[in-house]
Amino acid sequence: MQIAIVTFDGFNELDSLIALGVLNRIKLPGWRVLIASPDEFVTSMNGVVMKSHLSLESASSADAVLIGSGSKTREIAKDGRLLERLSLDPSRQLIGAQCSGSLILSRLGLLEGVPACTDVTTRPWVEQQGIRVLDQAFFAQGNIATAGGCLASTYMAAWLIGRLVNRQAAEEAIDYVAPVGEKTVYVEQVMKNVAMSLRG
Amino acid sequence: MQIAIVTFDGFNELDSLIALGVLNRIKLPGWRVLIASPDEFVTSMNGVVMKSHLSLESASSADAVLIGSGSKTREIAKDGRLLERLSLDPSRQLIGAQCSGSLILSRLGLLEGVPACTDVTTRPWVEQQGIRVLDQAFFAQGNIATAGGCLASTYMAAWLIGRLVNRQAAEEAIDYVAPVGEKTVYVEQVMKNVAMSLRG
Repeated sequence: MQIAIVTFDGFNELDSLIALGVLNRIKLPGWRVLIASPDEFVTSMNGVVMKSHLSLESASSADAVLIGSGSKTREIAKDGRLLERLSLDPSRQLIGAQCSGSLILSRLGLLEGVPACTDVTTRPWVEQQGIRVLDQAFFAQGNIATAGGCLASTYMAAWLIGRLVNRQAAEEAIDYVAPVGEKTVYVEQVMKNVAMSLRG
Repeated sequence: MQIAIVTFDGFNELDSLIALGVLNRIKLPGWRVLIASPDEFVTSMNGVVMKSHLSLESASSADAVLIGSGSKTREIAKDGRLLERLSLDPSRQLIGAQCSGSLILSRLGLLEGVPACTDVTTRPWVEQQGIRVLDQAFFAQGNIATAGGCLASTYMAAWLIGRLVNRQAAEEAIDYVAPVGEKTVYVEQVMKNVAMSLRG
């Protein structure tokens, strides 16, 4: 199982790496969580330089693709040649977007008829695309999910684990990363957000 | 104001980078949050390769130093030559440790008479050092703070901002990163953990 976290220059560290850390709690054979970027290195909005594991083209064949967020998403969303390198298909992949990543999903035509979550700053730009933005942290419809607010990354990770493994594995992953003495509260908060999308 | 996040090979992405992201919400002139590592590049426990901004020696002169966590902390805690490169002093610096970072603080002699928080896995090793480990996510005494559980990184970041700027700045930083629709709950949860350490 390969999960690609699409990470562009100007990326928000929380939006790419909280999901990566939580997803890596799964220790199944073949479970791989990889950073996918346009170039070999990407630099975050706060000057963190990270090496990419995968090209955007290779991310397109992952079992699940999560689009991260960042300070340059508006420019990236207008860059047709860059977005062309990402070929996503919800009929064969789980697709998630964190915060301003929703703007990318919208430009890729993947939010038609799907309401979305995003962060407060990105909201007007997503709405300009004709997408209905929800006042909540997480929403999934079929194989497409969106989340708003950096720390909602834990909800996105729990949804991906719930869909790709099972609900118990999602709960265990969140339990592991939750603060000491507050694990039950954190697991409940996360599962409350994703439970409806894991039913049936 | 310079804050160094000490990050060793095998690092836990959540423990170094949640704090980095939240701390970078502060936009004051001269406010710098930097990754400090033994070498130019560090590789995380999940294969994320990141470039370091600072040497360990330079981190020693930062206004605040946060020791991250990772899968190799037990070996690092035994490496006297490596730890010698870190020269920390709570009389002139704020010093924090996240999860297994507490083991490093203990080896540096900085937890004498200070109870500590750490993660569930590291707890017995910290206790072997004669340190009293608390059943809670965050504890600060004077200029030294420790946190247990990756997501308690938000508590550590809020404490650092509360001490270096003020309480309102800490609340605003957490509000920004909290999930949409749940911001009040998250800010309350974080401030409940750090409020006592920000009084007076």
